[in-house]
Amino acid sequence: MVAPYTASYASRIAKLRGHLKLEQGEAVLVTSLKDIRWLVGFSGSNAVIVIDRDGLLLVTDGRYAVQVGQECPGLDVKITSGNAFASAIDHVATEPVHTVHCQANHITWEQSQLTHSKLQKADLQPLDDPLPEFRASKTEQEIRLIEEALEITESVYEECLGIIEDGMTELDLAAELDYRQRIAGGQGQAFDTIVAFGENAALPHARPSARKLAKGDVILMDFGCVVDGYHSDMTRTVFFGAPTDTIRMSYMAVKEALEAAAERASSGLIGATLDAVARDLLSRHGLGSFFQHSLGHGVGLDIHEFPTLSSRGASPIPDFSIITLEPGVYIPGEYGIRIENMGLLSPDGCRILNRTPIDPIIL
Amino acid sequence: MVAPYTASYASRIAKLRGHLKLEQGEAVLVTSLKDIRWLVGFSGSNAVIVIDRDGLLLVTDGRYAVQVGQECPGLDVKITSGNAFASAIDHVATEPVHTVHCQANHITWEQSQLTHSKLQKADLQPLDDPLPEFRASKTEQEIRLIEEALEITESVYEECLGIIEDGMTELDLAAELDYRQRIAGGQGQAFDTIVAFGENAALPHARPSARKLAKGDVILMDFGCVVDGYHSDMTRTVFFGAPTDTIRMSYMAVKEALEAAAERASSGLIGATLDAVARDLLSRHGLGSFFQHSLGHGVGLDIHEFPTLSSRGASPIPDFSIITLEPGVYIPGEYGIRIENMGLLSPDGCRILNRTPIDPIIL
Repeated sequence: MVAPYTASYASRIAKLRGHLKLEQGEAVLVTSLKDIRWLVGFSGSNAVIVIDRDGLLLVTDGRYAVQVGQECPGLDVKITSGNAFASAIDHVATEPVHTVHCQANHITWEQSQLTHSKLQKADLQPLDDPLPEFRASKTEQEIRLIEEALEITESVYEECLGIIEDGMTELDLAAELDYRQRIAGGQGQAFDTIVAFGENAALPHARPSARKLAKGDVILMDFGCVVDGYHSDMTRTVFFGAPTDTIRMSYMAVKEALEAAAERASSGLIGATLDAVARDLLSRHGLGSFFQHSLGHGVGLDIHEFPTLSSRGASPIPDFSIITLEPGVYIPGEYGIRIENMGLLSPDGCRILNRTPIDPIIL
Repeated sequence: MVAPYTASYASRIAKLRGHLKLEQGEAVLVTSLKDIRWLVGFSGSNAVIVIDRDGLLLVTDGRYAVQVGQECPGLDVKITSGNAFASAIDHVATEPVHTVHCQANHITWEQSQLTHSKLQKADLQPLDDPLPEFRASKTEQEIRLIEEALEITESVYEECLGIIEDGMTELDLAAELDYRQRIAGGQGQAFDTIVAFGENAALPHARPSARKLAKGDVILMDFGCVVDGYHSDMTRTVFFGAPTDTIRMSYMAVKEALEAAAERASSGLIGATLDAVARDLLSRHGLGSFFQHSLGHGVGLDIHEFPTLSSRGASPIPDFSIITLEPGVYIPGEYGIRIENMGLLSPDGCRILNRTPIDPIIL
């Protein structure tokens, strides 16, 4: 039944099937919407995929009846008037299934109980899930979409350097970044844009506020956009007026940490090893304890996806992963510095996708 | 231990405790972030609350150490360096607990398995969860925040009617709606803004595209913003050039359906009864089969929350619920019409919170 389906999705389905090696009587439920989008191209907000030895069925609701036909020509689809998950389980119940494999972190406990009660004869098993790793390796087309998103983000960053002025608020600048990305072709924000001035930049997850820009502030901007489901993610920290020596030294240390990580990065490396490169460098500058988050993360259909570049990143980075490198230093009550580039990792190393330099900029 | 905590949150916690009637050895985990925000005011992205007979503990991570102190003065807090859920379970394991009640639709199957394995002596039970119903009844302050958000949304709608012009794209108009809401004080979008022209409006969940506006198109705009966590949600459909008689009749039928629902609405009514009022009216116009989604939903800290106004809405609407009324008609390949107002429901009826009229507008 996969035959009539568009080639690249068909090859993804085939790859998953090759991994699953389903036997008669086994079924797999794919419930992560991003996994579903990667696998068959459907971008709606309510869907479950049922895979068994003989076929693949996508269940969604009436709001998406037209869209699913456009996005997934040739795919077997069931339109339900109710809950897609319950309807998928009802479908499984019509087949002689003895084992159902689920994405244990993408179904709720309630859904697991519903499955148990509707499929009393079947065994519910956590899926040994290869999809995060499959999704990490980007195709040429996926790389192009991320590059396109990042190009929008970078051009907007450069534009906005020209409009930053004394007294403007974090909210004003965030609104400009978001608006200009949309106008330039971004189909939405990659995440809630962070703009933080001065001491607010010391909160890694700051929310833009009515705080006004004043001479001597750092300006931290962390933002991105989406193109056909794929995300960009970029951080720059610039100075509004000449920084103190301490702040400037922190900046140079963060820049050096990013460059050292990029120099070292390649696919095949363990995430934690790469994280340690940046962390050790900041520690040598006496700044290790002010870098409290991970070095970076995979980016694709999700803004945060496999692989994890942190001290807990235990697996090798897959070929053609696109990741962020985003070391930072945060001094509570004073300032914060973060610089973030995106990189494409291959066995040959890391190709930085950003084109804007990371030398210090004083406005 | 609730005593030093700010009054309104303390009364919410007391209300929950009154419902739970916890006995010695019982614990409750609250894992929905919106429920946590409603209950104690914490707005971070990683938290779990543990409630037992003697106390209430919030677990979050180091990124929020400063914020939680500001948002929840006096609350017992545990800062973890890892996963908040696992850390909450570890805390429960230190107490002589025999029963743990969880929000079954707010923990994953994986988390339920982790709980089973870490608390082998304790029984894991789905919580008989009163929080959706508690949250539905809005306080005066919550009503004010939603009104404030809606006022921003409506003023931006009126502004944008003045900038709509031939050849502009759906993405252009969406960018204007989002930007102007930010500039006017909205702290983010309530959801991904929908702007759909002409035949694209036939997709109830259309995403803005590069489709250009042309004479004869309908323009469907569904958007909202957030103020202190509370959402607005509004849809208007206007005409770019005079509509055909068929389109105009559809519009008048949808308007009539909204007005009939608002006339009938009050707290105490069953959701399905109210849904049927609008549905029956559209059916009398021969349009029932083109209205495939529910009439509306509760709005608050979540854009979609209890109560559900659909054919499956089986419970009475709580006093002082704020809901949307959003009937629509979608003719595949041709056009779509949706009109959406927000209403505050009391035993006396429905007070529409919108001030912009819903009479047809031709630009």
